[in-house]
Amino acid sequence: MREQKHRVVIIGGGFGGLFAAKSLKKAPVEVTLIDRRNFHLFQPLLYQVATGGLSPANIASPLRGILKRQMNTRVLLGEVIDIDVNKRRVILKDGEILYDSLILSAGARHHYFNHPEWEKLAQGLKTIEDATEMRGRILYAFEQAERESGLATLKAWLTFVIVGAGPTGVELAGALAEIARNTLTHDFRTFNPADALVLLVEGTDRVLPPYPPDLSAKALQSLQRLGVIVRLDALITEIQSDSVTLKIGDQIEKIPTHTVLWAAGVLASPLGKKLAERTGAKLDRAGRILIEPDLTIPGHPEIFVIGDMASYCYQTERQLPGVCQVAMQQGKYAAQLIQSRLKKKTIKPFHYKNLGDMATIGRAAAVADFGWTRFSGWPAWVLWIFIHIFNLVEFENKLLVMVQWAWNYFRRNRSARLITEQVRTQRENS
Amino acid sequence: MREQKHRVVIIGGGFGGLFAAKSLKKAPVEVTLIDRRNFHLFQPLLYQVATGGLSPANIASPLRGILKRQMNTRVLLGEVIDIDVNKRRVILKDGEILYDSLILSAGARHHYFNHPEWEKLAQGLKTIEDATEMRGRILYAFEQAERESGLATLKAWLTFVIVGAGPTGVELAGALAEIARNTLTHDFRTFNPADALVLLVEGTDRVLPPYPPDLSAKALQSLQRLGVIVRLDALITEIQSDSVTLKIGDQIEKIPTHTVLWAAGVLASPLGKKLAERTGAKLDRAGRILIEPDLTIPGHPEIFVIGDMASYCYQTERQLPGVCQVAMQQGKYAAQLIQSRLKKKTIKPFHYKNLGDMATIGRAAAVADFGWTRFSGWPAWVLWIFIHIFNLVEFENKLLVMVQWAWNYFRRNRSARLITEQVRTQRENS
Repeated sequence: MREQKHRVVIIGGGFGGLFAAKSLKKAPVEVTLIDRRNFHLFQPLLYQVATGGLSPANIASPLRGILKRQMNTRVLLGEVIDIDVNKRRVILKDGEILYDSLILSAGARHHYFNHPEWEKLAQGLKTIEDATEMRGRILYAFEQAERESGLATLKAWLTFVIVGAGPTGVELAGALAEIARNTLTHDFRTFNPADALVLLVEGTDRVLPPYPPDLSAKALQSLQRLGVIVRLDALITEIQSDSVTLKIGDQIEKIPTHTVLWAAGVLASPLGKKLAERTGAKLDRAGRILIEPDLTIPGHPEIFVIGDMASYCYQTERQLPGVCQVAMQQGKYAAQLIQSRLKKKTIKPFHYKNLGDMATIGRAAAVADFGWTRFSGWPAWVLWIFIHIFNLVEFENKLLVMVQWAWNYFRRNRSARLITEQVRTQRENS
Repeated sequence: MREQKHRVVIIGGGFGGLFAAKSLKKAPVEVTLIDRRNFHLFQPLLYQVATGGLSPANIASPLRGILKRQMNTRVLLGEVIDIDVNKRRVILKDGEILYDSLILSAGARHHYFNHPEWEKLAQGLKTIEDATEMRGRILYAFEQAERESGLATLKAWLTFVIVGAGPTGVELAGALAEIARNTLTHDFRTFNPADALVLLVEGTDRVLPPYPPDLSAKALQSLQRLGVIVRLDALITEIQSDSVTLKIGDQIEKIPTHTVLWAAGVLASPLGKKLAERTGAKLDRAGRILIEPDLTIPGHPEIFVIGDMASYCYQTERQLPGVCQVAMQQGKYAAQLIQSRLKKKTIKPFHYKNLGDMATIGRAAAVADFGWTRFSGWPAWVLWIFIHIFNLVEFENKLLVMVQWAWNYFRRNRSARLITEQVRTQRENS
């Protein structure tokens, strides 16, 4: 009888899960990668889909395609609903899978704090469907503006409020300002798209709060040069279908708008809560599991939690940022630790090496922070483009992205400006 | 006071409507193009989206972008619900627009004859959403197959039935056979995708019925070489979620399958029926309006009906085919007639000039019929690619399509293999 190989089950095909799987390529294990979707999503460019610069397929690669030559790995389309930690089983909606080691990397969704009713009004940006929905809402607002004759209603359709000035919010604001000022010129007959108002609302005292203050200042300058209006120290107190209300200090400001885009809080996958219930592991406020220095949970060295589901505070006493670099390095570490254990070796605790943080603000402006050096403007932008393109998983995607971007860059155009069905149905029903 | 220019209202931004608008570029008229969608769709390549070879944005161009420099034309996103022929008003869901000349080119939807209950079971292919839904269902079937252990259920998931062997059905069958035999090789662990069964069902006695018989024979050969099973003279008598029943002569054949793709009948936009009620114009069985030799309707020389909504039989005593060539030439003719009337001139009745018919059957096989010459195989395929690429409306689309296709051609790959939300929700609810 053939000996049963060590079974590694990975939940989630994002950066963490995919890199864990790839790092196990030559290991004497049987890997099962489970995801609800059949593709890996390059999330850092999701805002480009939301603003019509790229198509969904440009930033999504079928997981089977990526892993097709990795013969020790199978991919399963399925939804995990629970984990039986005693019998070491992953419970799917329609089946179950046994594991010897489990890597949990199911990511996070956007989060509306104590206002679940905002979800319908303020579109978030975590999935491909979020991105096409957001793209549709932005374009739909301009279409409605073309049909409005009243000045007040016109202004509300041309006001875009982005909540949260982290990298996603900043990049969205920059792209939106450019759409209004460049891409849509000549497209409309009854108004000037450049009159659109892009408002970026942030709860802390600066944009890009995780970055060093001088880069935040540079980013703010770039945003303002593009005409983006930034409101700092501002809290959202109410969202309605035709307005947003802010509180800045003692001031209350009510802004008429039909288009609110949500780039604020995130909440870890509900699987985290399930796992905490089953194991007694602790959760932080964002639903992340507090993990050990080796990325496992207390009392269960066979269960790893990585990426946006994990709260890891050993290194800096601060939470590691929710970026793909962290998830990739954690995925790789988990794979290494599993292999070391099979060889009865030990390795050092996980250590995150920050290779640099970057954000773009519209066309040809960016900020970059590599720790040992920081820069902004053109050089940072070129670097940003290259790093992102070369990180896209499959070669054809890279090629296409490069062609499309280069072309957009010269024409200031965005070809993927489609309003697809979702939006229309929702808007018509509302 | 400025004189009111002649107002031309065009309903529908497909090939007919768009070419009518473009042909009016220099005319002293005011053009309003109304569409429910914000983009023009290059329908002949829709099956490429349905099979993951192209992305939606590759074959869709924003109407505003196409017409942005045509200053006598405005584009309106809106849904026409009726036409008031007496007061010459187009009634929108939320407004109305006056016309002096009206061009009706709202196209057709797929049609399930007397079986509306088949719509949910057999996915049609007319819109971008149809295409992404069909793509999702095809890929989902392979995903389910990976999880099946029973041989009979496995076979049902790996059986794809395409109803209708017109150009769309034939092209779909060819592309599907290639996906199974080439693209997905190595992607699965529990079965061989090449075992998939692609079945093409046609009600008449040959594939590509509108083409000359010798090209139909060539197409049949190409399909069989790709492993497609063709059933001729076959009627669909029943569709269920796990089977399709055919009647061939006296034989009844029940085929277990979860994936039925509909490429059979079409029905003209319901606006045709509305217009017939208002004017007494006649409809044919497919809901098309019987038009005069100058493309107008009896008693209303100011109302043109073109493209898939029009039944035009003066030329050959046969209905003109539902292809973009016909719609484009009709759109151009309507524009010319409107301009001639403004100059008090007359022109000859519409005459359709067939520039050739083509269909592809998988990679590097095609049939072409130009009247004066017919050919098939490689040369027809290369021609097909070039004609389609150069007909795509915007340059960036052409460039992208060329890059992506060239790349796919060498790699036998299809990068846009995404299952998006629609499918999953439907399947889960069913």
